[in-house]
Amino acid sequence: MSNRLKQFINEHLEAINREIVDQVERLHAPQALKDSMLYSLKAGGKRIRPLFVVAVSEMFHNKQKEVYTVGAAVEMIHTYSLIHDDLPSMDNDELRRGKPTNHVVFGEALATLAGDALNTLAFGVLARMENVSPEKKVELINLLSIASGAEGMVGGQVLDLDGENRELNLSELEQIHRNKTGAILRFSIESGAILSDATKEAREALIEYAHHIGIAFQIQDDILDVEGTSEQLGKTAGKDEESNKSTYPALLSLDGAKQKLQEHYQFALKALNRLSEDTTLLREFANYIVSRNH
Amino acid sequence: MSNRLKQFINEHLEAINREIVDQVERLHAPQALKDSMLYSLKAGGKRIRPLFVVAVSEMFHNKQKEVYTVGAAVEMIHTYSLIHDDLPSMDNDELRRGKPTNHVVFGEALATLAGDALNTLAFGVLARMENVSPEKKVELINLLSIASGAEGMVGGQVLDLDGENRELNLSELEQIHRNKTGAILRFSIESGAILSDATKEAREALIEYAHHIGIAFQIQDDILDVEGTSEQLGKTAGKDEESNKSTYPALLSLDGAKQKLQEHYQFALKALNRLSEDTTLLREFANYIVSRNH
Repeated sequence: MSNRLKQFINEHLEAINREIVDQVERLHAPQALKDSMLYSLKAGGKRIRPLFVVAVSEMFHNKQKEVYTVGAAVEMIHTYSLIHDDLPSMDNDELRRGKPTNHVVFGEALATLAGDALNTLAFGVLARMENVSPEKKVELINLLSIASGAEGMVGGQVLDLDGENRELNLSELEQIHRNKTGAILRFSIESGAILSDATKEAREALIEYAHHIGIAFQIQDDILDVEGTSEQLGKTAGKDEESNKSTYPALLSLDGAKQKLQEHYQFALKALNRLSEDTTLLREFANYIVSRNH
Repeated sequence: MSNRLKQFINEHLEAINREIVDQVERLHAPQALKDSMLYSLKAGGKRIRPLFVVAVSEMFHNKQKEVYTVGAAVEMIHTYSLIHDDLPSMDNDELRRGKPTNHVVFGEALATLAGDALNTLAFGVLARMENVSPEKKVELINLLSIASGAEGMVGGQVLDLDGENRELNLSELEQIHRNKTGAILRFSIESGAILSDATKEAREALIEYAHHIGIAFQIQDDILDVEGTSEQLGKTAGKDEESNKSTYPALLSLDGAKQKLQEHYQFALKALNRLSEDTTLLREFANYIVSRNH
């Protein structure tokens, strides 16, 4: 990771984490529910999505504190999806980021409800932001609903479950990831542009950047499952191959997947060329995505 | 049920149902997911919550079609909560409104995801309404998030699960119902007032009406579980007593529960006296709530 990116993360990570935790702690709600929500929110995520909201906003010199709130909302959606995905009736995972999953600690019923509450809270915190116009809030809520719902993340998870027991082609695999993880990543990047009153052209360039970063992110995830160790990943490595899951390395070979990763990385950088702002940070972010080892 | 109320329901039920179904059918999402969402949405609910949105709006002579959209959003939240509540890890119900529950038909994974998608969609449809100002949309989204999330419905469900294995007192029982079912009923009524630009005084009177109707609704539910037949209810009658659940009849005796029901009914009517509008329909709605047999 570059020094500039490290410095950026050091500068903002604490504020992001504080906002996420504050939004839950201030709720007048049963303590067990808040504990379950906070357990997964604090379980050591890298906060890539909130950091993207902040990084795009910073590129446009937007220093308003609401960028952390939008980041917190995205992280709530991401976290609720992990809690529900880990349930026994879904992926049945007992370990996530090196820790027992939510339902292992709190039971299935509370895990399901903590996920539900985080999903709902994400929209509430967007609606309650100060210093953001109602027009922008409505646009952000609409886009987050599309990105995270039946047409985005949840729809992608349905396709993913449906594809588990058969071999997918590349186009099916990309559709799953575009919905399951890409849509939320795109929202993270687009929301930073909306908050910062970016021009239509800048916004479109960023959406293209987000598209390629999203695919690159998933390819690297698949590569890490082959090449990484369980210790590095905080989850069982090699699980994809063992379960015959359709992945980029399985479809393209490991070398083919690495080549495809580089292609999308280059397309992402090329999209940034259309921006007149200083895109150094977003370039380094892209580099981190494709070269990370966990 | 009075003729006036019957006529009102006949006049609006089809438009409510159409809006609910349209909002799901137009989604670009996996068909299996849409089928699962639609199955529970169409499973024969009485649409009490959407009808309240419309009834309050009609009292203020508000004829805009968006009242159906807000009604659809509330019904989505209500339906998602039923799907998740019925899951084996929660109440483990296999029958709802006389039909197999969602997870019995579609499996637990898809049922969980259909619930998630309905939760998310509710906020999306509010954000996308035409002819409603961004200010009002943000207010509605904020209130729906509070009513349905950790501080409302989901929090109430946590308290309910937590209280299953011990005897609750009346105050604990009311707290559960205020959150679990009352908050969404209140939103249904308050949202009609917001859409119709009701005065602060009118809105407060309606909130008080909603409060008492909410408790009355739950007491009648508990009474019906004792007195009704499974055929009338479309679910297993007598289940509360069998499972030692804390209910109004269990705490107050059947006669005591009926007396309390009448008290809240009278308080609800009294709140309506503070309105200068024609409250006939809301009075008849209240009467229906306390005298319904299913």
